[in-house]
Amino acid sequence: MTQITLCTFWRSSCAWRVRTALHFKGLQYCTNIVNIWAGDNKTEEYLARNPFGQVPTLVIDEEGKEPLALFQSMAILEYLEEAFPERMKLLPENPVDRARVRLICESIISGMHPYQSVAANIGLDDLKGPGSADEWSRNFLLKRFAALEAVLKESSGQFCLGDSISLADVCLLPQYYSGESRFKIDMTQFPVIHRICNKLLAIPEFSSGHPEKQPDFPGDKKDISKTTIYAVK
Amino acid sequence: MTQITLCTFWRSSCAWRVRTALHFKGLQYCTNIVNIWAGDNKTEEYLARNPFGQVPTLVIDEEGKEPLALFQSMAILEYLEEAFPERMKLLPENPVDRARVRLICESIISGMHPYQSVAANIGLDDLKGPGSADEWSRNFLLKRFAALEAVLKESSGQFCLGDSISLADVCLLPQYYSGESRFKIDMTQFPVIHRICNKLLAIPEFSSGHPEKQPDFPGDKKDISKTTIYAVK
Repeated sequence: MTQITLCTFWRSSCAWRVRTALHFKGLQYCTNIVNIWAGDNKTEEYLARNPFGQVPTLVIDEEGKEPLALFQSMAILEYLEEAFPERMKLLPENPVDRARVRLICESIISGMHPYQSVAANIGLDDLKGPGSADEWSRNFLLKRFAALEAVLKESSGQFCLGDSISLADVCLLPQYYSGESRFKIDMTQFPVIHRICNKLLAIPEFSSGHPEKQPDFPGDKKDISKTTIYAVK
Repeated sequence: MTQITLCTFWRSSCAWRVRTALHFKGLQYCTNIVNIWAGDNKTEEYLARNPFGQVPTLVIDEEGKEPLALFQSMAILEYLEEAFPERMKLLPENPVDRARVRLICESIISGMHPYQSVAANIGLDDLKGPGSADEWSRNFLLKRFAALEAVLKESSGQFCLGDSISLADVCLLPQYYSGESRFKIDMTQFPVIHRICNKLLAIPEFSSGHPEKQPDFPGDKKDISKTTIYAVK
């Protein structure tokens, strides 16, 4: 008997990535809400599992074994691919296509997402006035979305790489949602990204992981743009 | 006949990661210097290969095929694992160990490296006075190195995961070098990281990729802490 628990927070892009993959794999899991805004990620218990104090953490509890706590979303996504090879695959077969998928993932995970909250973390609103942090993040994201659009223009079919859903799509949609909902970017200026993401939003494995469908979603749209310090304190 | 070209810049941590892997795989490659400080990464020609305008880009030119340009260092590292399976492996065999290696890589690639230049990029020196950007980055890195130390305390033997060299080591050493040389962090406060990295520095596959051994290294130690805007302009 294996029990899978996802330590998650409704707004976390990284947690949405993992939810989507779990849905595609058809793996049942329990949800453990880690309210970052309340500091649940900085408790001694949570840090023992994940010293970085971030979400998500995926805990796999197999009878007769030590519980396994995995963190960092891409590492978790790759683990799910390898540990459940009989389930739906989210990486293509050949090395070049796999590299194309992974470079899209990494462009988002390392090239966009880390920069979202950092301007607020640096205190840009205090230094330059209210809204400065979001403005910096918005401008940064705009440039990276433009580069990503150029990449996807070459690689995409219906989805990021051709016509098959892959980890690239799993990573793209949460970033699209952040851009649109939190940073008020008009995403129609990136027609390929916009088209793919609207298709993804209609697919249950993606939409059921949507932040606003999570049990801890505060239900107040204004909170989406509330700046959170994800970073270490 | 396959020709491999690495578009590289001496100080880039991401390029060092790829150099190290190429050395372990025993793959010959040409070096194409992309001087980020001179804007070589923003030429039309370079952006056509890599719309993000970052280094490294790995170009694989196989006779009779379209040249393949891959970017994002972890995607390249995974590609080299899969495309040359007969060469030395830098990922362990079983899924859990592979996840442990990858989560260390991602903690560095997404959790540390993106934050290195961002304070300067935001203009913190102008807003708070000279040195503020480096100070912000240093404090941020200190916290993340502490978390990484906790992870490695559990997983390490001689190297990041047990006694075999892996992609985790490939990613760790450039981050150690940045911390020490560029941000003047006393790395002896992280004894596990310090011990592993000093062992790595004595291994030719790592040391021959060292930034200060690259043909474009300016040879002026002061330049190491010169703040560069890696980010999009």
